[in-house]
Amino acid sequence: MRILITGAAGMIGRKLAERLARDGHLGGKDITALTLTDIIAPAAPKGIPATIDNADIAVPGEAARMVAERPDVIFHTAGIVSGEAESDFDKGYRVNLDGSRLLLEAIRQVPDYRPRFVFTSSIAAFGAPYPDAIDDEFITAPLTSYGTQKAMVELLLADYTRRGFIDGVGIRLPTICIRPGKPNRAASGFFSNILREPLVGQEAVLPVDGSVRAWHASPRAAIGFLIQAATLDIVLLGTRRNLNMPGLSATVDEQIDALRQVAGEAAVRLIRREIDPAIARMVDGWPRNFDASRALGLGFRADASFGEIIRNHIVDELEGRPPSQ
Amino acid sequence: MRILITGAAGMIGRKLAERLARDGHLGGKDITALTLTDIIAPAAPKGIPATIDNADIAVPGEAARMVAERPDVIFHTAGIVSGEAESDFDKGYRVNLDGSRLLLEAIRQVPDYRPRFVFTSSIAAFGAPYPDAIDDEFITAPLTSYGTQKAMVELLLADYTRRGFIDGVGIRLPTICIRPGKPNRAASGFFSNILREPLVGQEAVLPVDGSVRAWHASPRAAIGFLIQAATLDIVLLGTRRNLNMPGLSATVDEQIDALRQVAGEAAVRLIRREIDPAIARMVDGWPRNFDASRALGLGFRADASFGEIIRNHIVDELEGRPPSQ
Repeated sequence: MRILITGAAGMIGRKLAERLARDGHLGGKDITALTLTDIIAPAAPKGIPATIDNADIAVPGEAARMVAERPDVIFHTAGIVSGEAESDFDKGYRVNLDGSRLLLEAIRQVPDYRPRFVFTSSIAAFGAPYPDAIDDEFITAPLTSYGTQKAMVELLLADYTRRGFIDGVGIRLPTICIRPGKPNRAASGFFSNILREPLVGQEAVLPVDGSVRAWHASPRAAIGFLIQAATLDIVLLGTRRNLNMPGLSATVDEQIDALRQVAGEAAVRLIRREIDPAIARMVDGWPRNFDASRALGLGFRADASFGEIIRNHIVDELEGRPPSQ
Repeated sequence: MRILITGAAGMIGRKLAERLARDGHLGGKDITALTLTDIIAPAAPKGIPATIDNADIAVPGEAARMVAERPDVIFHTAGIVSGEAESDFDKGYRVNLDGSRLLLEAIRQVPDYRPRFVFTSSIAAFGAPYPDAIDDEFITAPLTSYGTQKAMVELLLADYTRRGFIDGVGIRLPTICIRPGKPNRAASGFFSNILREPLVGQEAVLPVDGSVRAWHASPRAAIGFLIQAATLDIVLLGTRRNLNMPGLSATVDEQIDALRQVAGEAAVRLIRREIDPAIARMVDGWPRNFDASRALGLGFRADASFGEIIRNHIVDELEGRPPSQ
């Protein structure tokens, strides 16, 4: 089993590589090659030898090299985040759309080759107004350039699959919470910041109202989605290859309540409320609740509660240390 | 009022140019310039002087030239048809996707410029399985490369509109029936052939079962949609810029009944039933019925009956001659 991960220096790509290296196998088959590619040099995970490939997927020719050794499974997580795709129009289309298309085209050019192709799409592929719960038949009418690029790649994924060039599965990731590490340019970053920073005694800014509702999944759940997408029985999917993922629908105030229960009032006091109209406007167009029954029926599993998300974050990212207070 | 029509040698583009030349105005403003562009040299319509531009929109640089004179309204009808986009994968993406994107990019590069941009999308942007009636919130999950390309351009149109580069309206045309002229490579061609050819005493092949249902609009109605899209009050549209058009839901047998009423049994006997599995399979994934209430509320109007479609065809294409029998 040969595996390629694009965007392997990103949070999802890195955690996926660590999980695969720890497991040593995928879908019952030993992992014999793991290639990690990213424009930023990815770190090698512990456990199995990995090939590190420091390259820009959006440069013509690079993708052909990446797939030359015919990986059985490709996890395509490369891309720039929502805030950057909104502020840099050209870069967003170049990386998120053209980069993905170059990869798909490179695969198509390899004779007699049809890898499982798992693409990290996003709930940003949807745009308001919404029904009470978004199902897999709801239109992808995004309200950001990032969401537009994701929805376009979903369409390519379905067409390349129908043509027999790939065996594609697109998974629309919820907002990932708690995103570890430093704040990045994702406009959704504050959903994580307001939990992650107070857990280590740091202040965090909440730029929207506490009543804002969003659809969340933990990094641990997201990696589980990717593994499930790579190993599920493909005949169950039919022609609709892009799936809403299960998650937790929660308001910011509900997130903060969970933080209070796990880490106490002192942690909550570190959240500074300071409305940012630009972020509030973007978030206003984001989905709040889903009917993910299709994905649940296919074996995808989400977190049980925000308390569980916070406790798993403490285990996974803070070496199980109780929060500093 | 300056107007550009891409794909002006195509059936829709040509009829639109004729209508505009006949009217002399659009939305209450005199037409001062009409530019017709196509890879096949378009014919000049009677009525007003037109600039003929014989060019391939998918060649980099051409689109910039086309928009250099800042047309107020751009009707983007250029593209290759469904059958050809399916048989020539590269050409379909090059013309239908890249050509459209080059045009949008060229517009974006013109400073302080935001034309009304009317795009002829298609109900092929949808794919089975369907609800009883497809509304404007149903997912665009096409089952052809042509439909994929149309759905991708719809996404671009919405994002370029949101960014303020264009004032876009995408209209998802029904199957156009009765399409005049010779059969082309559109897989939907037979819906027209079985009416048009018998009306002039010629045989036509019906490659699917008579129970096949489709969503139809006449060329006359389609041109009306384009005019309406170019002139409607844009604030009524909101962020969802791509619209299902009204039409007639009819089975092939219902089409044939209408032909019988207008042209008699002798015309019907010219239809030769000969199932083509490849066409039957493509058509099987096409939409059959729509809820076009949104477009109806915006003033778009369809044909009243298939009898009217046939009678208007006789007026528009056969100089009002009664059918030969």
